[in-house]
Amino acid sequence: MGRKNSETVTIKDISQACGVSISTVSNVLNGKTGKVSAAIAQKILEEVERTGYRPNYLAKNLRAASTKTIGVIAEDLIVFSSPAIIEGIMNCCEEQGYNIVVENMRLFGRWHGKWLHDDKLFYSALSPVLSKMDSMNVDGILYVGGHEHTVDQLKSASNLPIVMAYSSSTDKKIPSFRLDDVQGGFDAVTYLVSKGHRKIGILAGDYDNVHTVNRIAGVQKAMFEAGILFDPGVVIYGEWNKESGYRGMKKLKEKGVTAVFCMSDAIAAGAYQYLFEIGCMPGKDISIMGFDNQEIASLLTPEVTTMALPLEEIGHDAVAKLIELIENPGKRVGMEQTDIRIPSVLIERNSVAAV
Amino acid sequence: MGRKNSETVTIKDISQACGVSISTVSNVLNGKTGKVSAAIAQKILEEVERTGYRPNYLAKNLRAASTKTIGVIAEDLIVFSSPAIIEGIMNCCEEQGYNIVVENMRLFGRWHGKWLHDDKLFYSALSPVLSKMDSMNVDGILYVGGHEHTVDQLKSASNLPIVMAYSSSTDKKIPSFRLDDVQGGFDAVTYLVSKGHRKIGILAGDYDNVHTVNRIAGVQKAMFEAGILFDPGVVIYGEWNKESGYRGMKKLKEKGVTAVFCMSDAIAAGAYQYLFEIGCMPGKDISIMGFDNQEIASLLTPEVTTMALPLEEIGHDAVAKLIELIENPGKRVGMEQTDIRIPSVLIERNSVAAV
Repeated sequence: MGRKNSETVTIKDISQACGVSISTVSNVLNGKTGKVSAAIAQKILEEVERTGYRPNYLAKNLRAASTKTIGVIAEDLIVFSSPAIIEGIMNCCEEQGYNIVVENMRLFGRWHGKWLHDDKLFYSALSPVLSKMDSMNVDGILYVGGHEHTVDQLKSASNLPIVMAYSSSTDKKIPSFRLDDVQGGFDAVTYLVSKGHRKIGILAGDYDNVHTVNRIAGVQKAMFEAGILFDPGVVIYGEWNKESGYRGMKKLKEKGVTAVFCMSDAIAAGAYQYLFEIGCMPGKDISIMGFDNQEIASLLTPEVTTMALPLEEIGHDAVAKLIELIENPGKRVGMEQTDIRIPSVLIERNSVAAV
Repeated sequence: MGRKNSETVTIKDISQACGVSISTVSNVLNGKTGKVSAAIAQKILEEVERTGYRPNYLAKNLRAASTKTIGVIAEDLIVFSSPAIIEGIMNCCEEQGYNIVVENMRLFGRWHGKWLHDDKLFYSALSPVLSKMDSMNVDGILYVGGHEHTVDQLKSASNLPIVMAYSSSTDKKIPSFRLDDVQGGFDAVTYLVSKGHRKIGILAGDYDNVHTVNRIAGVQKAMFEAGILFDPGVVIYGEWNKESGYRGMKKLKEKGVTAVFCMSDAIAAGAYQYLFEIGCMPGKDISIMGFDNQEIASLLTPEVTTMALPLEEIGHDAVAKLIELIENPGKRVGMEQTDIRIPSVLIERNSVAAV
């Protein structure tokens, strides 16, 4: 029998060649030789040597105790929210003495939104990452979404504790930490109402996007509480970018709104552009409110009043829950609440005037 | 003899307890038992089991061959340039079949600039990361700076191939891939000159920052070639932010410049703010040029003409060189050029008018 490619040798090959069970091989390689004769142990070690059986599998078997390491799987580091979420994760891990390893699946950068509805494509990115996490013997997995959506492919893929950040699972045993978009939409419009506005236009994201849907629910709640009729005619759906804000502002301007709630700061930048073109001053002639508190919000003139996403808090709280799960195996800690919504925070600047 | 804390057991402890050399222990744990009697092998394995000798050390010893893994050490993922550099790294690694592990030292987030002049602080972040890279048996290390500066602490810290991205080393054997700031400053001013400007103000970064110094050198070269006297009176040094741009623009406005080269897009945003306040329109009444091509550049109105940092290219080319070094051990491949400067690219938008 020739030497097999070491890349393909498995623990099963070793066990078959030696005529022993897989668990015997595993025990010898783990140094648990109490129940194995020295001759068998020697035979196994020789076969490992002869075949060049890959040592990363050994490493996996050898590590039984906690590695104090959290595996972070990011959908894409290049999405603006990811670095801040990871900063929050690392803050908490530093406090609690955990290491992290970050894996970047680059889903958006490589495939835009295509992978969202293509399980095969998604698994082609997720599987190698999970097996890497497995070979590193991480204690648990924190999944970081690029935006909020449901990811169900993890629950069956790993036996480790899992927590979702900026994303969720339908498996109620997997806790998720997300943005409270209903509260965000509610607070934004309640703030505009507090400044005297009653004719409020909305420049929303995609019609069926979960952030859009939840923020609209918050808008409606705020209007109901203020006794303002919700007019679907001044809600313009579009994309999350500047171009969409420009086009939407053009439509809203004809409808005589005194304030506009933009569902992203980039949309607000587009609204600004249209207003500048027609000689109308945001924060004076018309009030503009953004969302996200990206860097752009404070770089535009006038600076944009917006809702700050609690990204570091989402990362921090999600990994704190994960560590709680890791350190209390078997216990269903805090399982009474698996879907945690963290509120965004109003940042008052200069783009909203009282009427 | 009681059971020692497994955290502190070393290969030396095992070798002493068994009365054998360290290399014998290592051989047994590597499955290289040809030269060792079965009894000794058994004794060693039992001692490993008894002491709970930590398996990550085993893992390290066991892996001798290439792991096809690049260790990426980032000064800080939260700095705007880092995700794009890492995207470039991952692009190249995907092409060439390499994995990456990313370690984030969070130097800026935790300590601002303090660590730049505090070796002890810097090592407190670097050392655990290097030992982690070591235990993962990475094939080489790619260091990603948060901005350009010299990092000499790595050269003695690792025997692995190292390449610096967006940073450099004084060790000429360590290749570095950086921004060509002289070319960037030169091209920015040459562009303004091509639009007829001869009275050009500069809103620069910190006086002693290496990016500032190199871009100023490029500015001077461009002015010399255009036969324009370099007037230090219209060069305002400051910080890289909006506030600095606002203050600097106020000073420059009094000096009658027709165009301003801002060394960051955030500085340009501050210049815009001052100009709006005095009713002066950027791109019409005065020309403004930015640098970086951050998202803000296309979100401002008018959109900012700027120089795009070649961040993905820096990451891509740096890791391509690292892979070349890994796959040609001993050979001094491409060592004729160790300090590679990658040019930034002019992005024409609407903030520069012809005079």
